[in-house]
Amino acid sequence: MAFPKKKLQGLVAATITPMTENGEINFSVIGQYVDYLVKEQGVKNIFGKSTLGMSLHVSSSVFRRYILPGYQLDQVIIHVGALSLKESQELAQHAAEIGADGIAVIAPFFLKPWTKDILINFLKEVAAAAPALPFYYYHIPALTGVKIRAEELLDGILDKIPTFQGLKFSDTDLLDFGQCVDQNRQQQFAFLFGVDEQLLSALVMGATGAVGSTYNYLGKKTNQMLEAFEQKDFSLALNYQSCFLIYFSRLGFGVSQTKAIMTLVSGIPMGPPRLPLQKASREFTDSAEAKLKSLDFLSFTDLKDGNLEVGS
Amino acid sequence: MAFPKKKLQGLVAATITPMTENGEINFSVIGQYVDYLVKEQGVKNIFGKSTLGMSLHVSSSVFRRYILPGYQLDQVIIHVGALSLKESQELAQHAAEIGADGIAVIAPFFLKPWTKDILINFLKEVAAAAPALPFYYYHIPALTGVKIRAEELLDGILDKIPTFQGLKFSDTDLLDFGQCVDQNRQQQFAFLFGVDEQLLSALVMGATGAVGSTYNYLGKKTNQMLEAFEQKDFSLALNYQSCFLIYFSRLGFGVSQTKAIMTLVSGIPMGPPRLPLQKASREFTDSAEAKLKSLDFLSFTDLKDGNLEVGS
Amino acid sequence: MAFPKKKLQGLVAATITPMTENGEINFSVIGQYVDYLVKEQGVKNIFGKSTLGMSLHVSSSVFRRYILPGYQLDQVIIHVGALSLKESQELAQHAAEIGADGIAVIAPFFLKPWTKDILINFLKEVAAAAPALPFYYYHIPALTGVKIRAEELLDGILDKIPTFQGLKFSDTDLLDFGQCVDQNRQQQFAFLFGVDEQLLSALVMGATGAVGSTYNYLGKKTNQMLEAFEQKDFSLALNYQSCFLIYFSRLGFGVSQTKAIMTLVSGIPMGPPRLPLQKASREFTDSAEAKLKSLDFLSFTDLKDGNLEVGS
Amino acid sequence: MAFPKKKLQGLVAATITPMTENGEINFSVIGQYVDYLVKEQGVKNIFGKSTLGMSLHVSSSVFRRYILPGYQLDQVIIHVGALSLKESQELAQHAAEIGADGIAVIAPFFLKPWTKDILINFLKEVAAAAPALPFYYYHIPALTGVKIRAEELLDGILDKIPTFQGLKFSDTDLLDFGQCVDQNRQQQFAFLFGVDEQLLSALVMGATGAVGSTYNYLGKKTNQMLEAFEQKDFSLALNYQSCFLIYFSRLGFGVSQTKAIMTLVSGIPMGPPRLPLQKASREFTDSAEAKLKSLDFLSFTDLKDGNLEVGS
Repeated sequence: MAFPKKKLQGLVAATITPMTENGEINFSVIGQYVDYLVKEQGVKNIFGKSTLGMSLHVSSSVFRRYILPGYQLDQVIIHVGALSLKESQELAQHAAEIGADGIAVIAPFFLKPWTKDILINFLKEVAAAAPALPFYYYHIPALTGVKIRAEELLDGILDKIPTFQGLKFSDTDLLDFGQCVDQNRQQQFAFLFGVDEQLLSALVMGATGAVGSTYNYLGKKTNQMLEAFEQKDFSLALNYQSCFLIYFSRLGFGVSQTKAIMTLVSGIPMGPPRLPLQKASREFTDSAEAKLKSLDFLSFTDLKDGNLEVGS
Repeated sequence: MAFPKKKLQGLVAATITPMTENGEINFSVIGQYVDYLVKEQGVKNIFGKSTLGMSLHVSSSVFRRYILPGYQLDQVIIHVGALSLKESQELAQHAAEIGADGIAVIAPFFLKPWTKDILINFLKEVAAAAPALPFYYYHIPALTGVKIRAEELLDGILDKIPTFQGLKFSDTDLLDFGQCVDQNRQQQFAFLFGVDEQLLSALVMGATGAVGSTYNYLGKKTNQMLEAFEQKDFSLALNYQSCFLIYFSRLGFGVSQTKAIMTLVSGIPMGPPRLPLQKASREFTDSAEAKLKSLDFLSFTDLKDGNLEVGS
Repeated sequence: MAFPKKKLQGLVAATITPMTENGEINFSVIGQYVDYLVKEQGVKNIFGKSTLGMSLHVSSSVFRRYILPGYQLDQVIIHVGALSLKESQELAQHAAEIGADGIAVIAPFFLKPWTKDILINFLKEVAAAAPALPFYYYHIPALTGVKIRAEELLDGILDKIPTFQGLKFSDTDLLDFGQCVDQNRQQQFAFLFGVDEQLLSALVMGATGAVGSTYNYLGKKTNQMLEAFEQKDFSLALNYQSCFLIYFSRLGFGVSQTKAIMTLVSGIPMGPPRLPLQKASREFTDSAEAKLKSLDFLSFTDLKDGNLEVGS
Repeated sequence: MAFPKKKLQGLVAATITPMTENGEINFSVIGQYVDYLVKEQGVKNIFGKSTLGMSLHVSSSVFRRYILPGYQLDQVIIHVGALSLKESQELAQHAAEIGADGIAVIAPFFLKPWTKDILINFLKEVAAAAPALPFYYYHIPALTGVKIRAEELLDGILDKIPTFQGLKFSDTDLLDFGQCVDQNRQQQFAFLFGVDEQLLSALVMGATGAVGSTYNYLGKKTNQMLEAFEQKDFSLALNYQSCFLIYFSRLGFGVSQTKAIMTLVSGIPMGPPRLPLQKASREFTDSAEAKLKSLDFLSFTDLKDGNLEVGS
């Protein structure tokens, strides 16, 4: 089958791994979590960071659970970054085996400094390990230290990686993002923006979707923003973005905070973060709950279960 | 008279100082230049960087020329950054004397590291030297090294500087910019964006205008983009921005390039840059001219004088 | 047994993993390599980066080989950085099982931004997985993004990690390094400097040893420099450092270059780097060989095998 | 007269401008200040930052005072950085007129980004304005943003600027500094290090002197360190450096703190800093005084009150 395959559309939630209070993965709520994303938040794609905090084996088991028949997810993209090429290739093969819809590959941490050729060669070797899976280049220079512009990299990637199907762009250089979009507009690639709090600015530059952790609990609101944008009601779109700007950026986007907020908003117990991170404090949770109530945000929970008791 | 005064609207051209081949300021073409901005480019405001390459005395003379009766500029804002508080204050007083419409103040280079209090205190002392002039805070962290977010600074500035009337924001942190806009929406402040190649993204966050050197030659096109945006014709707006993205960011935004492009596009001889900068090479000029022709860009010149001979 | 254990002294070579042309680890030359370090270079300690490019299993096998009875290495320190706390802990346990003499722990990549507490808590959890092994904190802010000064971290680490026995400091902030040394001077800790080309400057600040890849081929010369320093023959010490500065920093310190130089100097085939890195070009090798000859550097090889044919 | 002229030797104090409580320059204590530097601190050279906080005219008057006959300063170097080439040239000419012994030139702030050619061309144009004065290149990348290594710049500078006589290097890249020294060792250039708290590390790399604000009050101690270094008594040298490290880096090196400490140590009233800086708080002064006493440092103050026993 030729590339591009089915285009990734709309919002993609960076998954939160639910855990028990003992620090084990809580497989029992994954079904409920997926259901919540699709039905309550209108988010049909997920982005899984497969190596964070899990051995290869556990990681596989986790993502297999998201891909069970009966779930209504459109696409499951798995991030296969690792500390070596070999491990990244194994993760890519594994993603193919469990039926993922694509892999996302980041510049490796273990080799610095980069040249363009070394980086593209690395990406190509990972892509080749899963030749039937769509390949997404995940550009996040603040984390990887890559100084080469995405636009310049895309030229080489398109040349060498036939499975390329999109870009996850996590940076604020919207000129670079815009040039990526502009030069590849004819093709069915996905241009996914990864800085949640600036999504509206990226939409205007041609973003076709977005990947982020906030879409776990802000998916519905963000979908309303996308719709307002589509209908050219900018002041409404900006209103959604501003509401988000003011409240959630102040709560924070760390793992602990995200888990606490998601638990409050969805009613699904996401559990503590992994060590060495600490659970969000009772103080944080109380203050977040008050803010969410004042924003009428806990109505998401109401929708789900007709019940104002959340996070308990 | 109370603040805010007349709100600064739309595009603001960062002025290019016209020079003779001998390196003297070419006063004789300033009238023509202002006329061109207003009539051909539709740009009615200018932003003058008063200390760059000129002594205080010369600088005064220069800007006085832009403010002559008969010109149709709406507003002339003068940047009064200098190497000491005292010099900044003198420049501010002088701006008031020659009839400028506002002063823009940058964090000083000569004192690092900053604290918020020291910075705001500095800005306040400069503002107090020209108490009748609107005050614009010019936020450009890549140049000044200021790490404090504009949003946080605005709180303090509003508290201490009664003449505050707007922000020139030259950074890509659109979340910070958006928060500045969002929190001061009720007031008649100007929120001017200073990264020309990302203006569309800032418009969607609430920018009320823009300051930049490209509006000298791209003012008309950018005004068309602003209009398309106003009329919610996004794909047209993006088209303008993309055209700009692709061609002009590759030509470069340095002083030499800007002078060469402006000379080509306007037909007004802007002359060489000051030493130690070198004039753009013949090679650059030829290649720029070819590109501009292919973009039908030299028609600006046509408009002006029905003549394809430019830069002569 | 109480801490500190036997103090780590002198030079520590960051190991180069020998590989066959097919990209497999070349176990057959490890004995020769260790022998060469001890006998020809006078380097008796090694620092192994256990996770780079190898699965946990392979990594174990590799380092087990360095610890075989009969080898004359003083100490084998294993770096146990990984993409999760759990993996780091497994690597630490494994290091203990195979008889390593210490573990070195880096701030994890996977959690940003840091607070001091989160970082120290992470280090403590890794240390606790190998409670009988000396613990070295590996400070390399350019790689990890940690902004907290080592001096400040050491306070917390000493408080929480009873197995702490030293610092590997890979940064040019010699004030920070000097303060670490100065405040812990009474205790038998190792203060190992990790920027090879500035070692002389760190010695004067109190460094007790050094870790680096250049000590694989420059160990003997660097030991001569240490001796000159000890005997207060500064101009001789500076001479060694300068010789190094001029020639080797220009050859480059990347993995490919290090393997090529080590092969030339030692006569032991270190093989190509792992993909996606490319083997050093023939051009590089020829030019390096010429430079090494002009420095009388290939005499190392002569010493070893009375033979000028190297790297073949 | 041919270059190099008389070589600049030893410590160079970055001058502190004494001010009255009303914010005027306190010319009346300059003689006492110079006398104190030479006689009590053993510092015979000064480095004046001519443009900071003063108009050209005032600045001239100030430095003229340091050069009066009868003072025993060896050399007065004047920093001629400004916001334009023209101003820098005027400052250079003025330095020549008042009899300065050299000028120091920094990369200009007003033109970014740099190329090597533009930067060297700028430096050359400033040097040419004072063709009889020794020229020092002042390398301070954290302030100027220059990314080019000093070593690489020196090549070009030596080629183009016949009056070049030394480097003031204010950065922690001691490899770069060492390479500068190493490659120009034959000539009588001065290699002055500008990071006071790392001076010992730079000495070992070949520094021939140092420029800094701490030599105003730590000149005598630092001279003792230089002597200990010269006599190869490293542990004594390190002891001086450590004493300095621990106490003074914690007091801070800002203008306010420097003025307060200098006033305490010398007994000469240096006055407040210029606005927008605030005078050091009473709290700071009291705590600094207590620390200085505990270090036996206020015996310098004894000078002030009729007692010549210092620092002993």
